[in-house]
Amino acid sequence: MAALGRNIKRSAFSMQILLKYEGRRALSGSSSLRSGKVGFIGLGNMGGHMARNLIKKGYPLVVYDVSNDLTNSLKESGASVAGSPAEVASEAKNVVTMLPESSHVQQVYTADNGIFSTVQNGTLLMDCSTIDPTVSQAMSKIAQDKGSAFVDAPVSGGVNAARDALLTFMVGGTEANYNAASEYLSCMGKNVVHCGDVGTGQAAKICNNMLLGISMIGTSETMNLGMKLGLDPKMLAKILNMSSGRCWSSEVYNPCPGVLEGVPSSNDYKGGFGTALMTKDLGLAQNAATAMKSPTPMGSLAHQIYRTMTNHGFGGKDFSSAFLFLQEPKKK
Amino acid sequence: MAALGRNIKRSAFSMQILLKYEGRRALSGSSSLRSGKVGFIGLGNMGGHMARNLIKKGYPLVVYDVSNDLTNSLKESGASVAGSPAEVASEAKNVVTMLPESSHVQQVYTADNGIFSTVQNGTLLMDCSTIDPTVSQAMSKIAQDKGSAFVDAPVSGGVNAARDALLTFMVGGTEANYNAASEYLSCMGKNVVHCGDVGTGQAAKICNNMLLGISMIGTSETMNLGMKLGLDPKMLAKILNMSSGRCWSSEVYNPCPGVLEGVPSSNDYKGGFGTALMTKDLGLAQNAATAMKSPTPMGSLAHQIYRTMTNHGFGGKDFSSAFLFLQEPKKK
Amino acid sequence: MAALGRNIKRSAFSMQILLKYEGRRALSGSSSLRSGKVGFIGLGNMGGHMARNLIKKGYPLVVYDVSNDLTNSLKESGASVAGSPAEVASEAKNVVTMLPESSHVQQVYTADNGIFSTVQNGTLLMDCSTIDPTVSQAMSKIAQDKGSAFVDAPVSGGVNAARDALLTFMVGGTEANYNAASEYLSCMGKNVVHCGDVGTGQAAKICNNMLLGISMIGTSETMNLGMKLGLDPKMLAKILNMSSGRCWSSEVYNPCPGVLEGVPSSNDYKGGFGTALMTKDLGLAQNAATAMKSPTPMGSLAHQIYRTMTNHGFGGKDFSSAFLFLQEPKKK
Amino acid sequence: MAALGRNIKRSAFSMQILLKYEGRRALSGSSSLRSGKVGFIGLGNMGGHMARNLIKKGYPLVVYDVSNDLTNSLKESGASVAGSPAEVASEAKNVVTMLPESSHVQQVYTADNGIFSTVQNGTLLMDCSTIDPTVSQAMSKIAQDKGSAFVDAPVSGGVNAARDALLTFMVGGTEANYNAASEYLSCMGKNVVHCGDVGTGQAAKICNNMLLGISMIGTSETMNLGMKLGLDPKMLAKILNMSSGRCWSSEVYNPCPGVLEGVPSSNDYKGGFGTALMTKDLGLAQNAATAMKSPTPMGSLAHQIYRTMTNHGFGGKDFSSAFLFLQEPKKK
Repeated sequence: MAALGRNIKRSAFSMQILLKYEGRRALSGSSSLRSGKVGFIGLGNMGGHMARNLIKKGYPLVVYDVSNDLTNSLKESGASVAGSPAEVASEAKNVVTMLPESSHVQQVYTADNGIFSTVQNGTLLMDCSTIDPTVSQAMSKIAQDKGSAFVDAPVSGGVNAARDALLTFMVGGTEANYNAASEYLSCMGKNVVHCGDVGTGQAAKICNNMLLGISMIGTSETMNLGMKLGLDPKMLAKILNMSSGRCWSSEVYNPCPGVLEGVPSSNDYKGGFGTALMTKDLGLAQNAATAMKSPTPMGSLAHQIYRTMTNHGFGGKDFSSAFLFLQEPKKK
Repeated sequence: MAALGRNIKRSAFSMQILLKYEGRRALSGSSSLRSGKVGFIGLGNMGGHMARNLIKKGYPLVVYDVSNDLTNSLKESGASVAGSPAEVASEAKNVVTMLPESSHVQQVYTADNGIFSTVQNGTLLMDCSTIDPTVSQAMSKIAQDKGSAFVDAPVSGGVNAARDALLTFMVGGTEANYNAASEYLSCMGKNVVHCGDVGTGQAAKICNNMLLGISMIGTSETMNLGMKLGLDPKMLAKILNMSSGRCWSSEVYNPCPGVLEGVPSSNDYKGGFGTALMTKDLGLAQNAATAMKSPTPMGSLAHQIYRTMTNHGFGGKDFSSAFLFLQEPKKK
Repeated sequence: MAALGRNIKRSAFSMQILLKYEGRRALSGSSSLRSGKVGFIGLGNMGGHMARNLIKKGYPLVVYDVSNDLTNSLKESGASVAGSPAEVASEAKNVVTMLPESSHVQQVYTADNGIFSTVQNGTLLMDCSTIDPTVSQAMSKIAQDKGSAFVDAPVSGGVNAARDALLTFMVGGTEANYNAASEYLSCMGKNVVHCGDVGTGQAAKICNNMLLGISMIGTSETMNLGMKLGLDPKMLAKILNMSSGRCWSSEVYNPCPGVLEGVPSSNDYKGGFGTALMTKDLGLAQNAATAMKSPTPMGSLAHQIYRTMTNHGFGGKDFSSAFLFLQEPKKK
Repeated sequence: MAALGRNIKRSAFSMQILLKYEGRRALSGSSSLRSGKVGFIGLGNMGGHMARNLIKKGYPLVVYDVSNDLTNSLKESGASVAGSPAEVASEAKNVVTMLPESSHVQQVYTADNGIFSTVQNGTLLMDCSTIDPTVSQAMSKIAQDKGSAFVDAPVSGGVNAARDALLTFMVGGTEANYNAASEYLSCMGKNVVHCGDVGTGQAAKICNNMLLGISMIGTSETMNLGMKLGLDPKMLAKILNMSSGRCWSSEVYNPCPGVLEGVPSSNDYKGGFGTALMTKDLGLAQNAATAMKSPTPMGSLAHQIYRTMTNHGFGGKDFSSAFLFLQEPKKK
């Protein structure tokens, strides 16, 4: 991890949201590109939608998942099914992976029947999982040794954004690999942002989620305090949102039931982004901060609070249920 | 304080930004209103500008401050100078106070030569200080006993907003008193928001500043961590601002030098809102939260961090210097 | 509160555990001292036992409580019952008060039928409640104005220590008043410590409880973590207690069930010192720290955790239930 | 790491402080045991003293360190010097390692010229470094594959305890390996405690240091607050130490200058246990807690505070300088 901070040039990063890529695709012509199979490993809530969007855009898919139900479902959508990650890698020169945690990524790439056991020269590996950036870097190193290329490309946006191809991808890798990956990622999302070298996609993702996790608890305790001090919650939200307390959590995703419609807090904290997942992301942020020797007092406390919430049965509720967790229970 | 939460009706609050008032002034006619003197006590960085804006709008002023320099300056602008708060209250039936802390407010209102020693029947007292809401409520109680009226009306916006009459006032008081106060407050600001009964202006103010204080430290540690992970700071800010980590502190007032122009972080953290003042406001929030039995883990930690910063010489720097305080020092 | 830090001489404090007093009583003769009635106000779990211990030592008592049940019970033990604090103060020149919170103390001393309405010249007022030290100082000021004397004398030790006259009293007041108070306090406890001027008894009490509150949560999370890492809890406790992690909470009052016998953790967290009371004491510590501008990051977080525990139904359990609150729930 | 919690039997741990071993040594006779060379790698502040104590007890030593100065110094004490860890392992069947961090341990054991490149069948490897318990477990796994044995045996006690052979060793490994290691460890310390399987020595060490790190900051802020409230520091320490706030940090190692003699706080925070090292240990605790999904709010905040202290120049001072870091600077 220490290498991450030291080795990366910090100057030339820029946000190239598809512009450059769009030009490139126009030149090279889309039909020829779509002749080769695309591999897809990890067909869960997010991955299933993402794979279907690639099919919709005309790519032939070869897929793998440990769940037969999930592979069967993709088979009905027109994908061919492989028996292992190795088989996917032997059939496709562009492979997308979408897996829950670092350990799954290590398994899928490095196990005996993993991607690296059969990966072809010139293959492009695109990992969309949210994992430890040092694992991304380790995978990239092995990929290079085998003559293939690797980018980390974690996503922002939930299940609905995955379904509607509205995800944002934060990509870490060389500029050439970023450009090559954009062809596929742009079929599954609306923004494909180049963040820097391998690992920086993960870095951007965990930074965003750390600040989000902090702001959400901050908004929750502010709303709770204001209401106990006699303020109407809708009014308090309006004052915050016209003032310097404004944040995404107060404005777009307010955790107090009844302030906004169509958000988890107004639907008993169902749907949305589960507290257990937020806890996992803040754990990645803490590991990175410890390795980087960077103090993150608020991120660290937020991690502990979501962890405690998970222990108290909030793991499956949206993370905005921090409002509920901190609230004084109603007197009966 | 306990009474605050219990006694206030929470339903009928609404944001009445001058609309109703504008109508009222049109009816009653402005010339007759301006025949009576307005009192102004507390002529510091903020109060001085505010008093001058009342003069500009045509109100004759009688002023008081412990500093002769400050009263002389207002005298040159056309105000008459009183020898004590009591003298102000004996000459004016509308009095504005703008003082640093709860203790000054108690002194100016209740001391032997304080406002309450001479206050007239029907006087309207408008306190624009940011103080403990229970002190506002105590002052209001005494005012009522003496046949006068009190509103708390703390401001949002800094010295420039005070100079340019662009402040936002958050007003706690009865609807009638809010309407009456709006005549004067609207001369000094662009928004005059009715928050509820006496004390709720203070409540709204400390809620906003608590969330602001949390978000600023959160943004600071996120920017620091991202940079150590190899991200360019301008790029990281852009990613945050197009994602769910977005907040006023990341977007409008970014604490990392060089990300935005014209903010304190790009001017050696000079100007802006001092860390010592933020510490004071978060102390008020903590006192309120303790009295209300409302948990505020992030607000509480933010308070402690700003307190520690103040002890380490950051009290006079803008509070966005949290970025600097948390940063690993550069190797020489 | 600011005055507290500034005005008190810090040099001459010493621990005078009854030695000096014992001599004094010997000289003056105990029988004559016991001719006057002692007043006692507040006959709850602690106060009831304390009052009975004074009776046992031969003092005639005049008592008051809002609860008739409690006063009747003391009547059976030989006390006479007064109709108000004022009546107590008119009959007794030495008065002990033992009340739940600052507001009750203010009420009992300053209300229309309060102690100060009838207090006699030369009366000694001993307040054993745990309250805000600034309230102690305010009561002392009024007492002085009325020709009487006041000491704050909060206790350490629980209901059993109260019953067995084994309490520790931390006394704030002049040396003369401390000596005079020791006669009565020593009948109810084994240690009577002179901490300094009025308010320092409270200061010592809240300092001790803040550190206790921190250590207990620290011990709880350490025991939880060690067990998840595969350590036997009794063994982990032994290692801590022979090492630098040792504290009262690990050694005498271990929060992990089964490590020690006869402590609340081995009795379903019943008995002991309730989480709600610890929350109250840490609230007093936070108010004092904010007023003193003294950073207390761990004390502040501990306060928030106990507050959250109280909201989640742990208020009536012993505060060592922090272990339970932080524990991952057992899989079923 | 997950395996650690699951696989270890929690029941049969017991503290077997040399008793069993003493018997064994008596039987086997010490002279024959001492015929074989003992390897020692890592001759820093701690390791140098430890190696010399083995020489004093009659063991022939073969040593390695990257610093020639350190190896030369041991040569003068009678050790033979090897050119690499591999050379040590080819000459000795009992090897002790004492290294700063996880990465050094991995390097010394697994590099091309590392211990595992030449380790003999039946060799006993004893790692006294404080590192991530999962690294200990990984080293043990490789050792097993090579027919050798591994124990983790981190130490408690500082440089003086190392010099005087008064360390405590917390040993993780099978009972047989613990017994075998005790022969050597007991020459360097007074307590050799069996904690359980491989990794539990590290677990016990980081648990102890986490609670120590928490208590020290807790004591520091309590002493600071008490002094601002007017209490004499020596007196406050006495009250804490006779009450429930008592802990090793208040009693044996008080962070307030002048309360105790012969501790770092009374020597400008020189000597003792550096803040940077405490930060490192709390980082290990955080990594373990995140992996174990065990909430540690106080340990987490303590980690952040020591990290911030290190950034502010306290890294080389004793960790009790938390008192200084949190203190309001003296007015000049």
